Amino acid sequence: MAEILRINMTDRTATYEEVPEKYQHLAGRGLTSTILYDEVDPTCHPLGPNNKLVFAPGLLTGSVAPTTARVSVGGKSPLTGTIKESNAGTGWGQQLARLGIKAIVVEGRPEEEGWWGLRVTKDGAEFFDADEYAGRSLYEMAPSVFERFGDRAGMMTIGVAGEKKMAMAGLCFNDRENRPSRYSGRGGLGAVAGSKGLKFIIVDDTDGPGVEMADKDLFDQGRKKMLNALRSHDITKPKGGLNTYGTAVLVNIINEAGAYPTRNFREGRFEEAAATSGEAIFEGNQERLGKELYNHACSPGCVIQCSNTWFDADGEEMVSCIEYESTWALGANCGIGDLDTIGKLIWQCNDLGIDTIEAGVVIGVAMDSGIAGFGDGEAAIKWLDEDIRQGTPLGHILGQGAEFTANAFGNERSPTVKGQGMPAYEPRAIKGIGMTYAISTMGADHTSGYTIAPEILAVGGDVDQFDVDKADLVRAFQQTTAFIDMSGHCLFIAFAILDIAEGFEGLVEECNGLLGTDWTGDDVTRIGQEILDKELAFNRTAGFTAADDRVPEFMRYEPLPPHDVTWDVPDETLDAVFKEA
Amino acid sequence: MAEILRINMTDRTATYEEVPEKYQHLAGRGLTSTILYDEVDPTCHPLGPNNKLVFAPGLLTGSVAPTTARVSVGGKSPLTGTIKESNAGTGWGQQLARLGIKAIVVEGRPEEEGWWGLRVTKDGAEFFDADEYAGRSLYEMAPSVFERFGDRAGMMTIGVAGEKKMAMAGLCFNDRENRPSRYSGRGGLGAVAGSKGLKFIIVDDTDGPGVEMADKDLFDQGRKKMLNALRSHDITKPKGGLNTYGTAVLVNIINEAGAYPTRNFREGRFEEAAATSGEAIFEGNQERLGKELYNHACSPGCVIQCSNTWFDADGEEMVSCIEYESTWALGANCGIGDLDTIGKLIWQCNDLGIDTIEAGVVIGVAMDSGIAGFGDGEAAIKWLDEDIRQGTPLGHILGQGAEFTANAFGNERSPTVKGQGMPAYEPRAIKGIGMTYAISTMGADHTSGYTIAPEILAVGGDVDQFDVDKADLVRAFQQTTAFIDMSGHCLFIAFAILDIAEGFEGLVEECNGLLGTDWTGDDVTRIGQEILDKELAFNRTAGFTAADDRVPEFMRYEPLPPHDVTWDVPDETLDAVFKEA
Repeated sequence: MAEILRINMTDRTATYEEVPEKYQHLAGRGLTSTILYDEVDPTCHPLGPNNKLVFAPGLLTGSVAPTTARVSVGGKSPLTGTIKESNAGTGWGQQLARLGIKAIVVEGRPEEEGWWGLRVTKDGAEFFDADEYAGRSLYEMAPSVFERFGDRAGMMTIGVAGEKKMAMAGLCFNDRENRPSRYSGRGGLGAVAGSKGLKFIIVDDTDGPGVEMADKDLFDQGRKKMLNALRSHDITKPKGGLNTYGTAVLVNIINEAGAYPTRNFREGRFEEAAATSGEAIFEGNQERLGKELYNHACSPGCVIQCSNTWFDADGEEMVSCIEYESTWALGANCGIGDLDTIGKLIWQCNDLGIDTIEAGVVIGVAMDSGIAGFGDGEAAIKWLDEDIRQGTPLGHILGQGAEFTANAFGNERSPTVKGQGMPAYEPRAIKGIGMTYAISTMGADHTSGYTIAPEILAVGGDVDQFDVDKADLVRAFQQTTAFIDMSGHCLFIAFAILDIAEGFEGLVEECNGLLGTDWTGDDVTRIGQEILDKELAFNRTAGFTAADDRVPEFMRYEPLPPHDVTWDVPDETLDAVFKEA
Repeated sequence: MAEILRINMTDRTATYEEVPEKYQHLAGRGLTSTILYDEVDPTCHPLGPNNKLVFAPGLLTGSVAPTTARVSVGGKSPLTGTIKESNAGTGWGQQLARLGIKAIVVEGRPEEEGWWGLRVTKDGAEFFDADEYAGRSLYEMAPSVFERFGDRAGMMTIGVAGEKKMAMAGLCFNDRENRPSRYSGRGGLGAVAGSKGLKFIIVDDTDGPGVEMADKDLFDQGRKKMLNALRSHDITKPKGGLNTYGTAVLVNIINEAGAYPTRNFREGRFEEAAATSGEAIFEGNQERLGKELYNHACSPGCVIQCSNTWFDADGEEMVSCIEYESTWALGANCGIGDLDTIGKLIWQCNDLGIDTIEAGVVIGVAMDSGIAGFGDGEAAIKWLDEDIRQGTPLGHILGQGAEFTANAFGNERSPTVKGQGMPAYEPRAIKGIGMTYAISTMGADHTSGYTIAPEILAVGGDVDQFDVDKADLVRAFQQTTAFIDMSGHCLFIAFAILDIAEGFEGLVEECNGLLGTDWTGDDVTRIGQEILDKELAFNRTAGFTAADDRVPEFMRYEPLPPHDVTWDVPDETLDAVFKEA
């Protein structure tokens, strides 16, 4: 029987609990959001003793279903003040699931100074002193952790940003090569871990019970449908868009659409976009390595394999990986058009334990506030490598996120919703994703409902990017996404299941096979909405209202080139999304 | 006929408008809050082009009614995000009233960089270039302003903190000796002026029309009743508590009550309180000057005369004035027990154009976060004189207020409500004032309903400081206060009118005499509530909910010495205050 592992950081005790009946069919985001809803006072201080940090592998995580290595982490976010779920793709989550652990709930807060790690194996959970690991570079530190606990182990850790309780701090997980590079990046959950003195959770599933399965045949049937869909869709298939160019395949597409936020959302098209695109990464590596290099999986069992590596002029690995969001955030958004500089900035983010999106939006805001000029990569590197790393006063401004930075310098051009920096799609130029940012339970978040698929990519439909009548679309995407986030699948399966009906059937059958349920497609919507309802209720009690479900005011009066569009989605349309759910 | 002067900062134009019928009986806070309610989108960015700054003298301001030199300033606050009214006692407001101007509404925002002043006389309003005055010490700059515009002129200005759009920046007015020392301090309205490039409003009422009066006899009857009350109450009479010891007469009283917040609200009693009290100021001056020195009026026509001056060891003026709030904020709250250090810190605040309360709460939070030790006056002076003055990154943290500073350093011990630092009364030890902080439309604000009168001073009743059943008391005080803030009277008349029925009659008769109305005592409550209703509605649309009407969480779990009390007022009691209004 799967269990819940409860960790009290006040006195460093660990307790295994039976999974309550009502949690049996929940996992991933469905479980993190439900436990937070059930156990955490939404008005608590995110860094105080009453917040909790919940880790939950997805429903299918740890099974052989393809591309299901996601682990969800939840807590009240110090960046947004909302409920937060942020998931990462990493073998860590698979190992946790195979140990029969449905969730780890971390609560309390030590009275004394110090850093602790937790190691979880089939024999139980034990704490270890982690003071020696604090304050260090994650790239420098990580090998010593695997040396101590074995290459097979999975590592969750935080960097100096989390230790300093900065709201852009993420939780860092290992990738397949044990790089400290896979992140639950958004929402500052690294700072929550930091506030609790939690430096590590090490998992090792050796001789663990594995994942229970109610109906293996049904599961296998679903798994094969999913596999076929992923292997046949142009975006997700081997040597397809993602496998060849990574997520940065989007750069030229979104730039062409005039929706690629440039220089802190002052423009929608970046003159150096092509030089920072997925194609440029592929060709640059080819030139530097003398061969074609396709991408790799971030975690075991992924068939999409979209994770790239960027090599320097000497053919040495610089960083893995350059995601679309990262090349944009630390590139166009800062006026930086050079992949080597972007690569160095991503390395810094991974090394410090911070979210690359928030970091890029922060740097853009700081440049917009005149602290340095747009395009000044040296200043950007210094801000990360010196200011955030050392915790200078400037580092404590930047480290708290984009809205905080804008407020520090009295700059109203803060491209944020509920305090979270916007990702790489301009709301003024793509209305549905702007609506998604505005009403998401998590602050500005493209992964809460990726309407870019029909709005730009003609996947799952084909709608005009400027059309403002998208309440139904936005709601449907958020519902399905909440379910996918519960399933343990990477969100990138969405391309295949939106276009290929059998893929969607496969998703439902995988879940039914695992749980013994008889969910249909309608249950996907229902369960997704139930997750959203808990998140919405949490946020309402925390004090959020319709006034928070808005993009920043400057987007309403500042036209965005090249289309010269402003934000013109009526407030009533935004408010209708969940009111009519 | 009185007029409204509308100032557009986008193109620097000034227009005189007739006062709409519905504004005829409004003034002061009643008018600033109504104009904001009518004209400003509550969701606008406080520093963006759509916020407005409204100046309105009180109803009686400019008349010969005693202690009526208040001018209200309103805007959406960059510190709290709420509607804000902050009033100051200064001849400036009297001059504005005598020019027949009921309100100045400042709107828009220049596209270009620069600083402008506005000069208002009987001949109209004209702009002047103010670049030469920017970036300077207010104490150094002020004399050159009066040299240029004449000693008779009234000056409203902002200091470097307002220029840098810091949320602790106030609006500075001249006192009777033309010191830059009277403040609309709270809520960061100086930053709103700064965002609009407005460095000055100079007024000169020479040959102005004066204040209109409907029934001079009735007004005189009321004025005399008020005068008698003020001259006979122990607190407000000549050589009474306030005239002798200033507002700092409260230090020993509140300290004795165990409600004097010490070292960032870690304790309720300060071991060096006596050395920083009103008595110590009186005795210290006596020793240094060799004579008894009673206090002076901050503005013409005040009979209470509570404003003191602190002299250094050589008998030279150091600063005027050391208010109760200032000696506490920059004293006990920072663990500083020395009047000379406190005096220097107040001088810095006046010179930079910042609110002494917010400054002291900020310094307390910074010390609590380990940036310097409690009691380190040198560090505190450096933070003001170097960091805020020069706008270093640390200055940009501190300048944005206490909650911002706490967030920068991941410290949940932020003694704030709605982002505004708490004044000098501990909520845990005096429940009614804590309730007032929690539900005030302005963030933590003792002047929104001074329940300390009955809770500690046995004025206007006598209730137990620890009693939590005070919804009715808190509501009644806020209603009456809103009316007093409209009348133009200084809030300190409250002591006399609470205890002396004729004083209260006098207040109503003064207003009726001026306006020709037939208000009764019930109208005071009604009109006060109408003002509050507009403020509450503004805040609701801005996104505030019951979740914001709370004291910080740490006060619920951290007992306060010496009484070892936590915050135990039920949320339902807080929510009932205005629900049952």
